[in-house]
Amino acid sequence: MTVASHAAQSFTGAILHTPDIPAGATQDRSGHVVAGDPALLIRAADVDDVRHAVRLAARERLSVVVRGAGTGLAGGAAAGAGALVLDVSGLNRIVELSADDELAVVEPGVAATTLDAAASEVGLRYAPDPASAAISTIGGNIATNAGGLRCVKYGVTSDAVLGLSVVLADGTLVHTGRRTAKGVAGLDLTSLFTGSEGTLGVIVSATVRLQPIPVRTVTIAAYFDEVETAAAASAAVLAARVRPAMLELLDAGSLREAQDLLRVRGRDAGAFVVAQTDGFGADAEAAAVRACFARFTSRVSVEEDPAAAEALLAVRRAALPALERHGRVLIEDIAVPRSRIARAVRRISAIARDHDSTIFTFGHAGDGNLHPIIVIPPDDDDAGARAQGAAAEIFATALELGGTITGEHGVGLLKRDWLARELGPDALRLQRTIRQAVDPGGLFNPGKVF
Amino acid sequence: MTVASHAAQSFTGAILHTPDIPAGATQDRSGHVVAGDPALLIRAADVDDVRHAVRLAARERLSVVVRGAGTGLAGGAAAGAGALVLDVSGLNRIVELSADDELAVVEPGVAATTLDAAASEVGLRYAPDPASAAISTIGGNIATNAGGLRCVKYGVTSDAVLGLSVVLADGTLVHTGRRTAKGVAGLDLTSLFTGSEGTLGVIVSATVRLQPIPVRTVTIAAYFDEVETAAAASAAVLAARVRPAMLELLDAGSLREAQDLLRVRGRDAGAFVVAQTDGFGADAEAAAVRACFARFTSRVSVEEDPAAAEALLAVRRAALPALERHGRVLIEDIAVPRSRIARAVRRISAIARDHDSTIFTFGHAGDGNLHPIIVIPPDDDDAGARAQGAAAEIFATALELGGTITGEHGVGLLKRDWLARELGPDALRLQRTIRQAVDPGGLFNPGKVF
Ligand SMILES: Cc1cc2nc3c(=O)[nH]c(=O)nc-3n(C[C@H](O)[C@H](O)[C@H](O)COP(=O)(O)OP(=O)(O)OC[C@H]3O[C@@H](n4cnc5c(N)ncnc54)[C@H](O)[C@@H]3O)c2cc1C
Ligand SMILES: Cc1cc2nc3c(=O)[nH]c(=O)nc-3n(C[C@H](O)[C@H](O)[C@H](O)COP(=O)(O)OP(=O)(O)OC[C@H]3O[C@@H](n4cnc5c(N)ncnc54)[C@H](O)[C@@H]3O)c2cc1C
Repeated sequence: MTVASHAAQSFTGAILHTPDIPAGATQDRSGHVVAGDPALLIRAADVDDVRHAVRLAARERLSVVVRGAGTGLAGGAAAGAGALVLDVSGLNRIVELSADDELAVVEPGVAATTLDAAASEVGLRYAPDPASAAISTIGGNIATNAGGLRCVKYGVTSDAVLGLSVVLADGTLVHTGRRTAKGVAGLDLTSLFTGSEGTLGVIVSATVRLQPIPVRTVTIAAYFDEVETAAAASAAVLAARVRPAMLELLDAGSLREAQDLLRVRGRDAGAFVVAQTDGFGADAEAAAVRACFARFTSRVSVEEDPAAAEALLAVRRAALPALERHGRVLIEDIAVPRSRIARAVRRISAIARDHDSTIFTFGHAGDGNLHPIIVIPPDDDDAGARAQGAAAEIFATALELGGTITGEHGVGLLKRDWLARELGPDALRLQRTIRQAVDPGGLFNPGKVF
Repeated sequence: MTVASHAAQSFTGAILHTPDIPAGATQDRSGHVVAGDPALLIRAADVDDVRHAVRLAARERLSVVVRGAGTGLAGGAAAGAGALVLDVSGLNRIVELSADDELAVVEPGVAATTLDAAASEVGLRYAPDPASAAISTIGGNIATNAGGLRCVKYGVTSDAVLGLSVVLADGTLVHTGRRTAKGVAGLDLTSLFTGSEGTLGVIVSATVRLQPIPVRTVTIAAYFDEVETAAAASAAVLAARVRPAMLELLDAGSLREAQDLLRVRGRDAGAFVVAQTDGFGADAEAAAVRACFARFTSRVSVEEDPAAAEALLAVRRAALPALERHGRVLIEDIAVPRSRIARAVRRISAIARDHDSTIFTFGHAGDGNLHPIIVIPPDDDDAGARAQGAAAEIFATALELGGTITGEHGVGLLKRDWLARELGPDALRLQRTIRQAVDPGGLFNPGKVF
């Protein structure tokens, strides 16, 4: 391609052309494939590379698909014909870490765990903890407004983002937000870019809030006979005015599979809930959690020892890898008002039966965010189609219960049609109006989200 | 005016014309006056009134100045020639209050304290607590993204807003956000409207998060010799991993004036800090706060008794009314990175001297948000001009220290020029682009903010 040859000189990072672009760089973890091959892959080394790449794409009428680590689950980083894939994972410096102001300035390619480790040296931590924190980029976390386990107490990624630097479609570098804990100067564009899934610009720097590491953490786990009682026990915890730092639920199937993977002595149960309390009140809150759980089951354990606590959490963490042993998985991500968790889980079981599909459900009971996992066995040709039918009904159920089609993974390519259903025509039009205003040429991630 | 006569029939609420519009309806608490008289004042009774009013204004080429309770401090609700003042304080129903989902749906005219009282009947509270919570509207709080005392732990108004219903410039009613604790379906337009100061549309309904009332609250107060030691003690609290629910600072002058107003035995000090801790760890956190304060002063008191605690808080609350006894006040609202609080307070004292002005400073030490209060004595003709000079230098200082010109009160009319200084031309252009996209005719609050 002639474009690239004379453009290559302007880049500090690497520039790859069609036949050399690895297949992995055109997909994310949803496995979704967009037809055709991207024209270019640019591995940016600095902000100038990003600006040049954006201008090059505009000039050559290519679209820009920004890419962090490609762990997204909605197809947001999937790229095909006519795309310039802009990989920003190489911008990975922690530019500043201020213990006094409890903040850090980072480039987008830093992993949340790397930042967290650096912060821990001064007694702080970066609260957002998607399960992918070690394998994804903070830029991707911000672009998808990633959630995680701790957000029931500490909020989602957007709650940790104070300000951003973003390269816009015309190559301009703009700064949003601030370094202060509070501030209301102008429209909140930081929140607008957070969760924009690569459709408005390229995040090239972020100022993020850090928090003190809690003085103490206690882990509580319980086995219940039914999802209903597990959900009721979780609700009781919140009604007892406890603010758990984590409140996770596994249904019977995911529990069984996770225990199987971990080779722990299987404990049969209808549902499993694991909670953490932290801070100065951790013990008192743990006692309250135990009391709430004990109203619904006799099988409760409280662990203060980190290793024992880790063993309880491991069950939650093993759920997804355990299911992936059985085939390809569709990882869904609905959220419902908390009072409707049990109803949602029951409905998902019914949907599995109706669509002859295997669905396991686990998720964040503290904020009603459920991950129904549809397993597609490799030897079942028709299972993929049935899974799609089940997924559609799961989305419909989420909306019917007053919820959302995506609690934390984003819309990307996969839920685009459902976004229209969730928002309705007027709100969708407003979303498009704003996208069009910020990126008039539709340079960034066309065909995604809206 | 002929417009009004045939339009009046369409409104359930009241419609007033030029000579009948009370002067109070054209100003807010900044006292800023816009030249000329508004054409109409419409006191909307329902959403249809709001839609009709917006369409009427568009048709008649009037601008729309939305108004809650008019307690704003930035001139946001000030209205003059060519304006239709749209008072939405009459939309004041609590539409829903769900204890299970910990949320409420409210109309914009509800006062935060009214919602809070209703929530308290089911053990919940609405966390955002601007000092004006009883006299302002929640719609105004959302439109300004109001702060308050508790936000150091519980966040600002935007952290409590889950979703909004907004009437746009063409009269369309759109819904943003959701009822779930988490959700990432599309761009975050809820945050875009929150803090938009009446420039994007009319907020006619809000779904807000409620929180459990903390099980216990403890109040700690201390007198320090110097602002420096008070700031150092506040920083020590945060470094001790305490998450205070409140951390307020008064300088020597505001302390003296507040005590004088309250007729409490004056305790001379260079600065006063009052903190609260709450939740299951309240006592342990209070002990930690006391220990931090004790490193810097011997004058510390801890109060568990609500009445005694209230007496300590009363000092903080009395500061502004105490200063208002001495003349007109300019209430400033800068925020600086927390590590720079002491420096900011010292710089403000120097600015007072340089500009021969009387300035008192108090504010939210927990998040670096300071309120320098410039007193303009009634008998000093030139004091207003000197105060303006001092204010300008305070803004410049905030920016120089890496802060913002407004921590919680907003830009409105009064800080418009400074917004451009804070954001710079590229970010300001982007702000205007978005405003222009959402409200192409510049119907809402033209001349404000941007
Ligand atoms: C095992 C596993 C566990 C997971 N657990 C969680 C979880 O707990 N919570 C959760 O929320 N998600 C989770 N995810 C999903 C995924 O990890 C997150 O969405 C993550 O934030 C994506 O980051 P990434 O760097 O991989 O982004 P990518 O996949 O590369 O990109 C994601 C989207 O963001 C855009 N983007 C990326 N970087 C930028 C940038 N710098 N500027 C602008 N746009 C950009 C892309 O265009 C794309 O639309 C999980 C995924 C896996 C595989
Ligand atoms: C004694 C006192 C104490 C205060 N303490 C605090 C404090 O602690 N923290 C703080 O942040 N502020 C404080 N303020 C400032 C003020 O009370 C807040 O800004 C408040 O949020 C304004 O609410 P309001 O209903 O009075 O709005 P108004 O003054 O009527 O309007 C404010 C702005 O919001 C817009 N607006 C109002 N309602 C709507 C709506 N429904 N839709 C769209 N736009 C709308 C208006 O156009 C205007 O731009 C204080 C003010 C006073 C007088």
